[in-house]
Parts: sequence; C-alpha cells; structure tokens
Amino acid sequence: MKERVAIWISYDGSNFNGWQKQPKGRTVQGIIEAVLSSILDDQIVIHASGRTDAGVHAISQCATFDAKMIMPVSSLHTALMRRMPNDIVITDMKLVPDNFHARFSAVGKTYEYKIYTSEKSSPFKNRYHTHLPRVLNEADIRRAMKCFLGTHDFKGFMASGNSTNKTVRTIFNFDLEVKNDIWTFSITGDGFLYNMVRIIVGTLIQVGLGRAKPEEIPEIIKSGERSKAKWTAPPEGLYLKEVLYA
Amino acid sequence: MKERVAIWISYDGSNFNGWQKQPKGRTVQGIIEAVLSSILDDQIVIHASGRTDAGVHAISQCATFDAKMIMPVSSLHTALMRRMPNDIVITDMKLVPDNFHARFSAVGKTYEYKIYTSEKSSPFKNRYHTHLPRVLNEADIRRAMKCFLGTHDFKGFMASGNSTNKTVRTIFNFDLEVKNDIWTFSITGDGFLYNMVRIIVGTLIQVGLGRAKPEEIPEIIKSGERSKAKWTAPPEGLYLKEVLYA
Repeated sequence: MKERVAIWISYDGSNFNGWQKQPKGRTVQGIIEAVLSSILDDQIVIHASGRTDAGVHAISQCATFDAKMIMPVSSLHTALMRRMPNDIVITDMKLVPDNFHARFSAVGKTYEYKIYTSEKSSPFKNRYHTHLPRVLNEADIRRAMKCFLGTHDFKGFMASGNSTNKTVRTIFNFDLEVKNDIWTFSITGDGFLYNMVRIIVGTLIQVGLGRAKPEEIPEIIKSGERSKAKWTAPPEGLYLKEVLYA
Repeated sequence: MKERVAIWISYDGSNFNGWQKQPKGRTVQGIIEAVLSSILDDQIVIHASGRTDAGVHAISQCATFDAKMIMPVSSLHTALMRRMPNDIVITDMKLVPDNFHARFSAVGKTYEYKIYTSEKSSPFKNRYHTHLPRVLNEADIRRAMKCFLGTHDFKGFMASGNSTNKTVRTIFNFDLEVKNDIWTFSITGDGFLYNMVRIIVGTLIQVGLGRAKPEEIPEIIKSGERSKAKWTAPPEGLYLKEVLYA
C-alpha cells in the first residue's frame, strides 16, 4: 500500500532550469524524482506547491508524492539528502494524510524579493539579488505597496502565456526592509499568478525611480492591462519563502 | 606601441573550472581573454598573480596584460565589464609601468577560508563555505594557528604534483573570526604553495576535532612529510582576498 509523503526543499535556483522536469536541462524536480525513484526502486512522481522559474530560489518549497515505504521516513530522508547536490537541501520529510497535496492543500504563499543598490556589482551577490545601482524613493515605494494589499483582479500582473481565468487574488501582507544597500520585499497572498511577484516588484521599482507615481497603482491594477504594469523584475532576486497550509 | 595594463577581478568560483584557460571547460582566464581580444581586436594573453582551482573564489585577483590601447583605459574597463557574466566583476583597471607583473611583482597574498558549522546545510551557503556540522575546539585551533606564523619550509603542506624546490614561505599573519556559526580564517604570507592554505586549514580542523594536538603542529611542519599534514579542506571555502604589491 502506498503512503503519501511530504518533503520540504530549499534550493539555490541559479544553476537550475527551474523546478519543473524537462526533457533537457537540470531541474529540481528531475533530480529529486530520479534519486527517489532509485532509492525506492519505483517510478516516483512529485508534485510541488507550484513551479519556480529558472534562477528563482526556494527557502522552503513543499512537494508531495506517493510511495510504498520500504523503509522508515527518517531513513529515506537521510538517503535522499546524501544523494542531493550542494544546491538542493531536503529540510524535512514526513508522512501526511492521503488528502494532503502540496499544491491543492496550500492556502497561501510568501515570496521574498531581494535587490542590492551598491554602485559596484559583486559576483557573490549577483545570483541572489537583482543589482540596481540606483537611488530609489523609499517613501513612494512604500505608498505604492499599500495599493496591492487586499483582494484584486491581478489580470494585468500576469505574464502572457498563462491561460487561467481566475485572476483574483488576495494579498495579506506586503513588507519592505531596507538594510544598508539590500532591499528585501516580502509578500504573502492566497496565491500568485505566473510572474505576478516579479511584475509587482518591477512596477514598484519604476515607482522608486520616479517613472510611475504611487497614485497610478490602483488604476493600473483596475485596468487589468499587462501593458500598464511595468517591467518584470529578473528571477535571481526571487525566493519562494514559505508555502502556507491550514 | 603596447602598454601594460593591470586589472583587478572578483569572481565566484563555483561555476568555473578554475582560473587557468583550458581546452575544455569554463575558466576565468578564458572568458576575460576572449572578451579583451574581441574588444581590442588582438590576441590578448593575461597573467594572473597565480592560479585558483575549480570552486575557489577571488575577492580581488590581479592580472596584467599588454595591449595596444586603442581606447582610454576607462572605456576599456566599461566595455569589458559590460560583457562579463554575472560571476565575474572587473573591479578596477589601470595602466601600470612595463616592469609591473601581476605574478612577479607580488610581495604577498591574503587568503580567507570560510566554514559554517550549523547542523543543517543550506544551499545558499554551500558554494561559499565548507559545511562542517561539528563542534570545533576553538582554543586548540588558535594555539595551533600560532605555530604556522613565521618562516618555515612548508614542503609537507604542498599538494603532490607540484614540482617546485623552493618550499620556504613566511606567514605574516593568521587570524580567525568566529561569528555565530561562521568561522573565517584569514592568512597572509609572502606566497603559498599549491593547496597550502587548504592543507593548513584541513590540519587545523583535525585539531579542532581532537584528532591532532596543537603541540604536534611544529613537528608536522618540521617533518616536511605530506602524509603527516592532514586533510585538504575543500575548495568552496577558499577566497583569494588580496594580492599585495610593494
């Protein structure tokens, strides 16, 4: 009899072609599935809370799979960890009820987005932050951030190519911490459309540079037009921080 | 007429097959030479202060080359920077006297070595630190460190395969900073043999784990036998911090 297992995964997205398994290219799902399948001598398929794009990191991604547990879960955890590359860490593994699903059971997610504004770039920051050597208007950015809170139709903040009709999302929380030259945005919502966080941050940066006004944000959201939302911020600054379950 | 140019380079060594150009594999020298040759429309060869191995980082490596300067040095710097990948940053570039050579003019070097001792590994630290989830005896390590100061024949602290006969080196300074779970060693000397820093740190870790005593260090150095020096610590914790010139 198969049991349902949940794993929590932290990964440095720099050297991955994203989460989702592909015929070619190194992916987080591909690597974990191959190792699990080898250890459990079965074809294991894992389901994440959602995909992450190439270059996007995860502090805590969640995924579930079904397996005939031929060993205790702690032994499987150790065996899996031992065969992970340096840029994937399996932070936790446990048996969960059959009706728990990493994606469908999720009630929300928190993402972080990191920017560094030093004049000179650093090879040690470039994988983990977006480099923006500019002066940003923090007060304007904070005013604009407030406009995203609550329930809105975020149709204009979704990358094209995504076909979902359900584009209403609720943002519970949106914070910004500025520490020396590091700006960290933290956003929590019941769900996010494809590229939504990166488009929101890209728009806020345009506000910070004076190219858009905080007062324009409600209108941009309301319009539902992708062309009104601004720049999509690059992937390397984005982290899936936590997936929330009831 | 050709002029001599010095560049200072910071790189994240994780995705390089080391500094030195090779027929195959991504190398720092290979990438910089290719871009310089293309910008200056000439075959440019650069000479570093020394090689760094695969996975080893540089906060500030120095290299020199000769070129017919068809543009101001600041323009060349900008053009070169623009074409560098994310993991190489050219921090400075300037014209130097003809007798200045990145390697032969160097009077010393400082290396750093970083370890993190948290129980759980982190994909965001693994490229930049050696993960050692153990309790280390700091007092013993500090006592052992003192034994390396001064002038010694470091023959026993050189990786095999290196053919130099000149194995006497002087260590000017050797510091350790412990901040939460991050241990940072900083060592300055007039020069270092192949893998010398990694073998010294590997030996200190053995001392910290109680597998060697601080009092044994002078004897290990004096013996000149590679087999007496312990473990070679892995490359990912090592940084070339600074090359010193008169």
